[in-house]
Amino acid sequence: MTGVKALFEPKSVVLIGSSKIREKIGMTSPQMFESVIYNMTKHFKGETHIVDLEGKKGAKTVSKLPHTPDLGVVMLPPSASIKQLHNGAKKGIKAFVLLTGGFKNPQRKQLADLKREHGIRILGPNTIMGVINTSNGLNTTFERDLMPQRGTISVISQSGGVGACLLDWASSYGIGVNKFAFMGDKIDIDDIDLLQYFDKDSKTQVICLYIEGIEKGTEFIKTAQEVVKKKPILVLKGGKTREAARRALSHTASIAGSDVVFDAAFKKAGIIRVEDIEELLNAAIALAKQPPLKGDNIAIVSNVGGPAILAADAIANVGLKLATLSEKTRTRIESRYPGIEAANPIDLIADARRERYTFVLDKVLSDPNVDGALVINMLKSSFFEPEDALAVAETSNKHPEKPVVDVPAGGEDFSLVQKVLRETNIPVYNLPEKAAKALKALRIYDEITKTPKKQS
Amino acid sequence: MTGVKALFEPKSVVLIGSSKIREKIGMTSPQMFESVIYNMTKHFKGETHIVDLEGKKGAKTVSKLPHTPDLGVVMLPPSASIKQLHNGAKKGIKAFVLLTGGFKNPQRKQLADLKREHGIRILGPNTIMGVINTSNGLNTTFERDLMPQRGTISVISQSGGVGACLLDWASSYGIGVNKFAFMGDKIDIDDIDLLQYFDKDSKTQVICLYIEGIEKGTEFIKTAQEVVKKKPILVLKGGKTREAARRALSHTASIAGSDVVFDAAFKKAGIIRVEDIEELLNAAIALAKQPPLKGDNIAIVSNVGGPAILAADAIANVGLKLATLSEKTRTRIESRYPGIEAANPIDLIADARRERYTFVLDKVLSDPNVDGALVINMLKSSFFEPEDALAVAETSNKHPEKPVVDVPAGGEDFSLVQKVLRETNIPVYNLPEKAAKALKALRIYDEITKTPKKQS
Repeated sequence: MTGVKALFEPKSVVLIGSSKIREKIGMTSPQMFESVIYNMTKHFKGETHIVDLEGKKGAKTVSKLPHTPDLGVVMLPPSASIKQLHNGAKKGIKAFVLLTGGFKNPQRKQLADLKREHGIRILGPNTIMGVINTSNGLNTTFERDLMPQRGTISVISQSGGVGACLLDWASSYGIGVNKFAFMGDKIDIDDIDLLQYFDKDSKTQVICLYIEGIEKGTEFIKTAQEVVKKKPILVLKGGKTREAARRALSHTASIAGSDVVFDAAFKKAGIIRVEDIEELLNAAIALAKQPPLKGDNIAIVSNVGGPAILAADAIANVGLKLATLSEKTRTRIESRYPGIEAANPIDLIADARRERYTFVLDKVLSDPNVDGALVINMLKSSFFEPEDALAVAETSNKHPEKPVVDVPAGGEDFSLVQKVLRETNIPVYNLPEKAAKALKALRIYDEITKTPKKQS
Repeated sequence: MTGVKALFEPKSVVLIGSSKIREKIGMTSPQMFESVIYNMTKHFKGETHIVDLEGKKGAKTVSKLPHTPDLGVVMLPPSASIKQLHNGAKKGIKAFVLLTGGFKNPQRKQLADLKREHGIRILGPNTIMGVINTSNGLNTTFERDLMPQRGTISVISQSGGVGACLLDWASSYGIGVNKFAFMGDKIDIDDIDLLQYFDKDSKTQVICLYIEGIEKGTEFIKTAQEVVKKKPILVLKGGKTREAARRALSHTASIAGSDVVFDAAFKKAGIIRVEDIEELLNAAIALAKQPPLKGDNIAIVSNVGGPAILAADAIANVGLKLATLSEKTRTRIESRYPGIEAANPIDLIADARRERYTFVLDKVLSDPNVDGALVINMLKSSFFEPEDALAVAETSNKHPEKPVVDVPAGGEDFSLVQKVLRETNIPVYNLPEKAAKALKALRIYDEITKTPKKQS
């Protein structure tokens, strides 16, 4: 096994650290070493070897290992890291994760030399959290048991902090993740390598990217253009404003250009740009669970009036439209439920339960004037019970070509309904505005996938 | 006791319903009646009387009550409601909450006549949730035990659904609320009455408003202009876009004008406009806990690099600035912590704990170039422990004139730090973008309070 594949799909991994060395700010300490060992031993389905410079745990150097592991994870100060990398490369290890930061320029050069001489691939240095693969239990982070739910979203983060934030967010809200890669200083493996890997990775359906700069612009755009034909790429770019960009330069040694340039590059690449971490994950969930939105016309189906009005505002704000329901649809709904005025937004009224949601949503999604639906089901101030939300998932399954998103507005309401819908294909948001933005991402992806076809 | 005061501060309340009548969609049912009785009996510190048309619980009509209650809460179909209102008014009750909806125009006229004849005040009809006062335990909602944490934010909502959503949000996230009023159809008591009451209410420090239309524009603006001298008003307006506005018209019979007109009216009134429910509560928390922001210059203090860069972007996006730290401040920080480059954003590095946060934040807030601070403290990928966040509250207390907000980015990180800071003066947000918007609200309120002084 060679290259980037070994980074995510190793059969055996060696953790190289020290049960003694403690660096103040370099992510080297016995506790961290212990935590990575804990995570790997507990979660990883392959073999985990340990190399401890002190020889207390496992071997004292990589060269003493009986077999050659596929991946080496190094958490030592720079000079010790380089030495172990050298030993490991000689032993035949093809891929390394360098968790530690603090590498100076001459040391970076040494890493580059090692890569050239031995044909090894390096993630980092300064990745801090390394890699996660929920399919095989690979987890090189030092946060014990922080393992997101298995899913189809894969994440590439240049920053350890933003990556950790995404990981915490995904784990807390039960967002289905497949792989995480924390790039750090990108001495070798970069966004392009990772995009190419995720392109071929059948377990990844949506790619999320946090970057502060791009080095090889043309190649990045060309790679992304290929990937987005099959799977959407979302990007959050740090250092958008001038002052933040200056800071990003010192943070991850990125060459951060003008934001206008990045914006144009992302558009050309077919990458969907978002504004914050929550929007990134919200859009990713929609893209992972629902089909692209093939037109602008959205139907709003709600059991409360006010939030439906806010949803209508939100739909217009993101540049989508309220669908005009056909006469046939209106008649079918109003003759079945005389109390309801089937104008869009449709107010199902506070006593609507599963049966009414099923009937109305089915009719609405059958309407050729409707391209997608935003469903609101509040529990507070109404008769709706959490299990009634299954009506949304079941009805959506009958119309697989039209996206549906769900909004149980509020705090407790959101948790209760999300629990019911978590395993279904329905993305759930706690505000209509977030659902509208997610629908917009589905609309943009539809436009992206259509553009290349027109050109060819 | 007369008027609006009786609505929030009654010594005695009568709940008027039926243990038999069940209306399909009018919020009349034995279960709801039971739930309101449950909430009032359990939480209300005054006397609770019950009038049940069936005579099963308490008296059969209001006229049979031994004393005259201050407030009548009616949850009956329209005609029965009107009859009970008539009886109650004759008995001397001065204020009524009409939870029920479905009143037709002639019935609305009857309500108006009753008001004129007897000088009673009516909240509703169609308020659905009625009123909440966390100070005396008054709670006329039918959601059992949904009582927000006591605080200084008071909320006026025209829509029962949006109000319920705000209530659910506030209760789930521990947001300190003083009073809730659900206006419904505004046959009598309206935003102006409620603003005037909250203006004099010493327990209310911040007012949140959800409205879909304004009837008496000039009076509304004049009232708000007075109120905002002492306490900020935040507004979320539903029916912003044309299609949603059309819907709002049928929803709460509001005359919804062009959004440009509303925007101008809010500006003139000194009301801070927000875009969604979360932003409304986020800004309210900041205004309830922190002083106005007297300049644009924000310092960012963080233990992680990437999120600090996103925070810098967010600060610029809302129209604030990254403060340029004075030479003195930089020297003080860098001589104490040689590893740190005291450029703004200041990266305290992953091993920063309570002591380093205290020192650096204190120096930063002492800097005349700094008007306020955005603090980031991630737990994941760093050494920070939740209790370390107390450093932020303690240091902020030493600089009461400069606002400080805190961002423990992520899901679990946010919950852990929020638990520590909940009882302090520090507003906590789960994303830097939300914290930046909250700081912006503090900046806008500073400009609002200064404007009238310049004019006079």
